[in-house]
Amino acid sequence: MEIVFNPPRAEWERYFSRRSADDDTISAGVARIVERVREEGDDALYALAESVDGVKLPFIEVPPAVRAEALSRVPEQLKASLRTAADNIRRFHEAQRHADVDMETMPGVRCVQRPVPIGRVGIYVPGGTAPLVSTVLMLGIPARVAGCGEVVLCTPPARNGYVVPEIVYAASLCGIDRIFLAGGAQAVAAMAYGTMTVPPVDKIFGPGNRYVTRAKQMLSVSQVAIDMPAGPSEVMIMADDTAVPAYTAADMLSQAEHGTDSQAILLCSSRSQAEQVRQQVIRQLEDLPRREQAQGSLQRSHIIVMDDRREMVDFANGYAAEHLIICMEDPWEVAGAITCAGSIFIGNFSPESAGDYASGTNHTLPTAGWARSYSGVNLDSFMKKITIQELTPDGLASLAGTITGIARAEGLEAHARAVDVRMSGATDRDK
Amino acid sequence: MEIVFNPPRAEWERYFSRRSADDDTISAGVARIVERVREEGDDALYALAESVDGVKLPFIEVPPAVRAEALSRVPEQLKASLRTAADNIRRFHEAQRHADVDMETMPGVRCVQRPVPIGRVGIYVPGGTAPLVSTVLMLGIPARVAGCGEVVLCTPPARNGYVVPEIVYAASLCGIDRIFLAGGAQAVAAMAYGTMTVPPVDKIFGPGNRYVTRAKQMLSVSQVAIDMPAGPSEVMIMADDTAVPAYTAADMLSQAEHGTDSQAILLCSSRSQAEQVRQQVIRQLEDLPRREQAQGSLQRSHIIVMDDRREMVDFANGYAAEHLIICMEDPWEVAGAITCAGSIFIGNFSPESAGDYASGTNHTLPTAGWARSYSGVNLDSFMKKITIQELTPDGLASLAGTITGIARAEGLEAHARAVDVRMSGATDRDK
Repeated sequence: MEIVFNPPRAEWERYFSRRSADDDTISAGVARIVERVREEGDDALYALAESVDGVKLPFIEVPPAVRAEALSRVPEQLKASLRTAADNIRRFHEAQRHADVDMETMPGVRCVQRPVPIGRVGIYVPGGTAPLVSTVLMLGIPARVAGCGEVVLCTPPARNGYVVPEIVYAASLCGIDRIFLAGGAQAVAAMAYGTMTVPPVDKIFGPGNRYVTRAKQMLSVSQVAIDMPAGPSEVMIMADDTAVPAYTAADMLSQAEHGTDSQAILLCSSRSQAEQVRQQVIRQLEDLPRREQAQGSLQRSHIIVMDDRREMVDFANGYAAEHLIICMEDPWEVAGAITCAGSIFIGNFSPESAGDYASGTNHTLPTAGWARSYSGVNLDSFMKKITIQELTPDGLASLAGTITGIARAEGLEAHARAVDVRMSGATDRDK
Repeated sequence: MEIVFNPPRAEWERYFSRRSADDDTISAGVARIVERVREEGDDALYALAESVDGVKLPFIEVPPAVRAEALSRVPEQLKASLRTAADNIRRFHEAQRHADVDMETMPGVRCVQRPVPIGRVGIYVPGGTAPLVSTVLMLGIPARVAGCGEVVLCTPPARNGYVVPEIVYAASLCGIDRIFLAGGAQAVAAMAYGTMTVPPVDKIFGPGNRYVTRAKQMLSVSQVAIDMPAGPSEVMIMADDTAVPAYTAADMLSQAEHGTDSQAILLCSSRSQAEQVRQQVIRQLEDLPRREQAQGSLQRSHIIVMDDRREMVDFANGYAAEHLIICMEDPWEVAGAITCAGSIFIGNFSPESAGDYASGTNHTLPTAGWARSYSGVNLDSFMKKITIQELTPDGLASLAGTITGIARAEGLEAHARAVDVRMSGATDRDK
């Protein structure tokens, strides 16, 4: 990892730009898979599981007996951990509930904003060697708190053709009892269009590889809503000499182990601190199981020494990190100046992994600079805000001139007449 | 307009499906325009204004003197109407502000959700024969209430090459003083990438034709956030015999005058009511300026008689209308059963035009069935919810087993070690 000293602002842009995934090469293949699932439904899911995943699916929807058996295979200690995490996530998302807005903008003009849960949501949980059990909680718990009527979970089959037990348990903590074995672009298509077995949904959540991401993007144009654009995970750490180098190094490696696409950037206040962290990273890397993935990521990572605290804030806002760790004096004051970040971690005892798994905040966060424009997944992601208005005759009368004036300025005469007809007082006009 | 009687549920789907715009034919052309603006910046805007709009732009950014002159040409009465509308919109969006969520999920584990305004937003206001002045207010007012730092407004030049005066005035009511003359896909590209003159933004709002919509979709994949998928406007009216046929007809025509792509669907409770409304539509259509556009739309519209109130509600939720007017007994009870709609209008004195212009609710609403998954534009559309967590040493200690347990179940050892290193109590580990 290079150490850089006070880079001039003119050079900051090169640190902000993320490597963009080359999606075009896979678009045609993803489109074919999506079309096939749309036309052939379940048959396509069975066929693609075999050709793509090398698995002969015993079923698409996991039967109750299989789920029950899977639950019995989850170690008690892991069950307890998942319950603790689920409780915190639930409490934080429940705290996000708010009442209807219900007020009069003028006498006789009542306006309401009412949150209503999205009816049917789909959650995609990637498979692979170590499935992301935490993702089930991060998406399933807020769906339940929001009151979504139907929650569909798709996950690729494990090697034996069955479902990963931990995923079944985590799903049960969210009240999800419909689990479907499907992966990749075909799972996204199944949830978007529905098949004989998989219900169609109104919004799809969840991380995934390039194929999953591309399928979500394609289908979000006209078929189904999605949570947010996806990209490789990243962390930025802002540290002064109140930070502990061993902790900082551990946080950078925590991010790096995700893989070569991940990125960790440290902004720190002194050369000596930069050197200490770098030493710690080298030392801690030695006996890390995912050392190779981490090394690949560290080559793309940076340690930047900045003298000026205000510069650090501006740099952090320009980068717009998915995760931002602040280990500095007056950290809440620094956080107050942050306008672009997915989730912020304050102090020496708030490792990113706390938020990834159990503090209660949501770990589905905007990457690739999208933190400039997007929120992480939260309770509102599972809701729609419907507005309602009711005008009394007097309320409409007081607004009549305003409405008709603007309508006519826009050349929309019938819009004006819809007010005039009511103002004319005729309730049984010529029939 | 056909009158249909109690269609069986098996046939409802044909009423729910919207005509989908054929976007693919224009994608290549839009991509070329976008690329040209990205590479040539202002030069492309001047060139495209000439070749596409037939206008020789005098400037891209409207100078203060030109804006001041334009303001003087807006009739006083229209200014007053726009101020009244702006005040109501402002009040309703101010009422949507809420405080940070700030709580402990467990002792020593503090979690915060903080709304922060998006820094730079772009508003596109289509031009044409009658520019949508109201759109300036609907997007500009919430941007100001949210506290967005920079608001950029793009609108095509009027025929004389200058800007529409009413747009300048509406913009001034929103505190927007940067207006750029650009239209179509090139305006969207300019705001997404920035040019020498047009600042880049983090999110683009605003309606537009197929080219604008396609450019927004394309650029939302990796460049800029957008408000929502767009489509032709629509209204559904739920009416029993408490509704007034002349009013209902006026509301249907108000929607129909938008053009042949628009749709109006009436659900009513009796044949005689259906006939009365149809008669009123024919009568009111006679002297409507935009009669041809309205007739085209009415051919795609329906009057559906339904005996059962519950069936009406289910149908309305299945259709997921952009605008839903409820003129029935116990209308708020009906509204309480609605789960999919953009904005609801209650009672005989709440024409859709009230919401389009002045009640205070936002008129930028989900069409084409997207009301199943999307909210209309609201204050949160201009904000990001950043989460913050701070754990005390004891708070982390109580969660340590949970975090490391799940991290190891996911095969992410460094995530677990980021906790372990803090629990080991070593603050100055071997350097």
